[in-house]
Amino acid sequence: MEMPKYKNALIVGAGEGLSASLARLFAREGIKVALAARKIEKLGALCTETGAHAFACDATSAEDVERLFGMVEREIGAFTDLVPADVAQAIAVSAFGGFLVAQQAVQRMLPNRHGAILFTGASASVKGYAQSAPFAMGKFALRGLAQSMARELSPQGIHVAHFVIDGGIRSAVRTEPADRPDSMLDPDGIALSYWNVLQQPRSAWTWELELRPWVEKF
Amino acid sequence: MEMPKYKNALIVGAGEGLSASLARLFAREGIKVALAARKIEKLGALCTETGAHAFACDATSAEDVERLFGMVEREIGAFTDLVPADVAQAIAVSAFGGFLVAQQAVQRMLPNRHGAILFTGASASVKGYAQSAPFAMGKFALRGLAQSMARELSPQGIHVAHFVIDGGIRSAVRTEPADRPDSMLDPDGIALSYWNVLQQPRSAWTWELELRPWVEKF
Amino acid sequence: MEMPKYKNALIVGAGEGLSASLARLFAREGIKVALAARKIEKLGALCTETGAHAFACDATSAEDVERLFGMVEREIGAFTDLVPADVAQAIAVSAFGGFLVAQQAVQRMLPNRHGAILFTGASASVKGYAQSAPFAMGKFALRGLAQSMARELSPQGIHVAHFVIDGGIRSAVRTEPADRPDSMLDPDGIALSYWNVLQQPRSAWTWELELRPWVEKF
Amino acid sequence: MEMPKYKNALIVGAGEGLSASLARLFAREGIKVALAARKIEKLGALCTETGAHAFACDATSAEDVERLFGMVEREIGAFTDLVPADVAQAIAVSAFGGFLVAQQAVQRMLPNRHGAILFTGASASVKGYAQSAPFAMGKFALRGLAQSMARELSPQGIHVAHFVIDGGIRSAVRTEPADRPDSMLDPDGIALSYWNVLQQPRSAWTWELELRPWVEKF
Repeated sequence: MEMPKYKNALIVGAGEGLSASLARLFAREGIKVALAARKIEKLGALCTETGAHAFACDATSAEDVERLFGMVEREIGAFTDLVPADVAQAIAVSAFGGFLVAQQAVQRMLPNRHGAILFTGASASVKGYAQSAPFAMGKFALRGLAQSMARELSPQGIHVAHFVIDGGIRSAVRTEPADRPDSMLDPDGIALSYWNVLQQPRSAWTWELELRPWVEKF
Repeated sequence: MEMPKYKNALIVGAGEGLSASLARLFAREGIKVALAARKIEKLGALCTETGAHAFACDATSAEDVERLFGMVEREIGAFTDLVPADVAQAIAVSAFGGFLVAQQAVQRMLPNRHGAILFTGASASVKGYAQSAPFAMGKFALRGLAQSMARELSPQGIHVAHFVIDGGIRSAVRTEPADRPDSMLDPDGIALSYWNVLQQPRSAWTWELELRPWVEKF
Repeated sequence: MEMPKYKNALIVGAGEGLSASLARLFAREGIKVALAARKIEKLGALCTETGAHAFACDATSAEDVERLFGMVEREIGAFTDLVPADVAQAIAVSAFGGFLVAQQAVQRMLPNRHGAILFTGASASVKGYAQSAPFAMGKFALRGLAQSMARELSPQGIHVAHFVIDGGIRSAVRTEPADRPDSMLDPDGIALSYWNVLQQPRSAWTWELELRPWVEKF
Repeated sequence: MEMPKYKNALIVGAGEGLSASLARLFAREGIKVALAARKIEKLGALCTETGAHAFACDATSAEDVERLFGMVEREIGAFTDLVPADVAQAIAVSAFGGFLVAQQAVQRMLPNRHGAILFTGASASVKGYAQSAPFAMGKFALRGLAQSMARELSPQGIHVAHFVIDGGIRSAVRTEPADRPDSMLDPDGIALSYWNVLQQPRSAWTWELELRPWVEKF
């Protein structure tokens, strides 16, 4: 029996029950998953696990739903097809959100002149790829934030570091082929390097560190 | 007679008459100028000429005025003192505005597969300085935009280039000391390099070019 | 009639007559050419024209001839197969020779506090490729030389610039396919950018500029 | 009693007894030390400890002695005063020596497809400073070597990493002022980061990492 092949799935009203199971199953089958919900804050873990992208959408609003489909379609696409509101949103999520969190954290760390803030970047943090301007803008901006913070806050005792994750991250549902072992980043391996940066004495701090699988082209 | 020394001036209700003359005079005397007006769109030339910064403010609104003084004070400052709305605004002006303009331009160029878009960056485009996170975020993002556009649009015939202006630009009211000739960038010199990049045949295009005075440390 | 296909040719005793014609013919046919002669100084133009590499060799010396074949084979190769003397030679040619020439030039320019020195780099100046360590070492070193000279000599009136040529250069015998126009760098296009850098006023100098064809991936 | 102040000391015939004690004492007093000996191989530890530079010299040879003084004088200096032989030597020591050692090591590691090679760079590896062209050439070249090796050898199981040490290294005789704690790199802190890079699983390898004191400007 020939099975139909699907490449994309959009799960509207995503939560933690069936929709989560579906998302995991789809991802395991190599289907690219988009999750839509009114509040996407809780979908972070599921997105990480499945590689899904989450979109805010009130499914009772015609406008929202139309916008949802537009966003899903346009995730990666030609420069001229980008929708300004989506671009603004991408920058806000990647960079401005990073600022907001970092500032709250620094305010609490400065009185003790002690603390560390680790930012996670991507290949796109240092290289602007075609058909990917919004992501490049956000990730470049985040790196600029990290570098500026490092220069300002290091002498005040706060260790700011930026990690360039250059490759796909292995997860329960996304693994590398058997004949290419360790060709995806093991999240435990990444975590080890984050941990090690936290252990650095202040006389020898790193502000940036890239991580990639041994077989990754770069 | 000893003259009092002022370092800063805030001109509220800035337009093209007296306030413009004052701005020029102040700038010539080395005073840092801030201009406030309800509509700041028309202040661009004056800002360029005098190095002033413009702030939107309806002086009949108590809230606006309070916000104005906050912004003037906070232009450059400690990371923890940054006001999130100002940061969002800085990113929007530096990077998102660049995107909006570029997209409109590209849409008109693509049918002819011909055109050029030149972005102006600064030292902060490649180096995040202390006490300057918003500017670094905006300028890094603009560079990411330019690089992504260059990769995508060059093969479609559109030349995208990014200029890193690494130093102060000479103007009628801001000039270098007599004993350090050419220690500021002559805008005509910058313009020449922009022009030259526009003349490059497509078999040998540049996507990035930095410009600095001969005596600039870098 | 099926024609045999050759991929490599080694012309020993290369000069300006038949061997030069052969080199041009071979190159036109897509054959990679190596030229060997006792004195290779005069082969520069021919090498540029044909993309050939020249090797010093006294064909009456058994030792030289053995070394010749070794060199031809090893031009690009696994790291462990590199012959130290070849590596030293590659660095000497790419970087130390650049230093020698630059120093002589600077000594003659400094009395007038005027002059310009333009270095030609390659993609390998900024990216060390696999199986290419000697070239990377030489080209990285040349860039370090150029940057150090720029910092030291710019304030003394000497303009030092480094060009990263990122792609193949078109020549009489090496041209791009008809369906990919301008996919190789036109040497006249490169020359134009060299010329333009020479025209820059000292208030707005560039120290580095990369050039690539519009369709080049980077 | 006013004490005379010395800034430089040249110790000829340096070994492990008195001359070593003198070197330590001088260094502690802030005097810059040069060590000359017929065989300088054994002076490495002393040089590291005292920040001294070692020069090979047979003090019974007039030529050697004249050359010695020339080298000591010229360590850092104007571009036009550089002596070509010294430049060649600097590149050889910084970069070619690194190649020789690395190749021997790789040959022994490849059969097991396992091993790691860590290169030590400096600020000059990524920035060519004025009056420092030979060092920049050598250190840039070493970085090119490391990057090329990383691309070639990582997929063969050998982890190649390059450390940019951006600051002075603390030693028994060179320490930071009491009011600037940890403003020099603690060698144990550096060692910890080397060790941590060695612990990285191959799914998340770093090829470059810079280290600097928390208060270092960069």
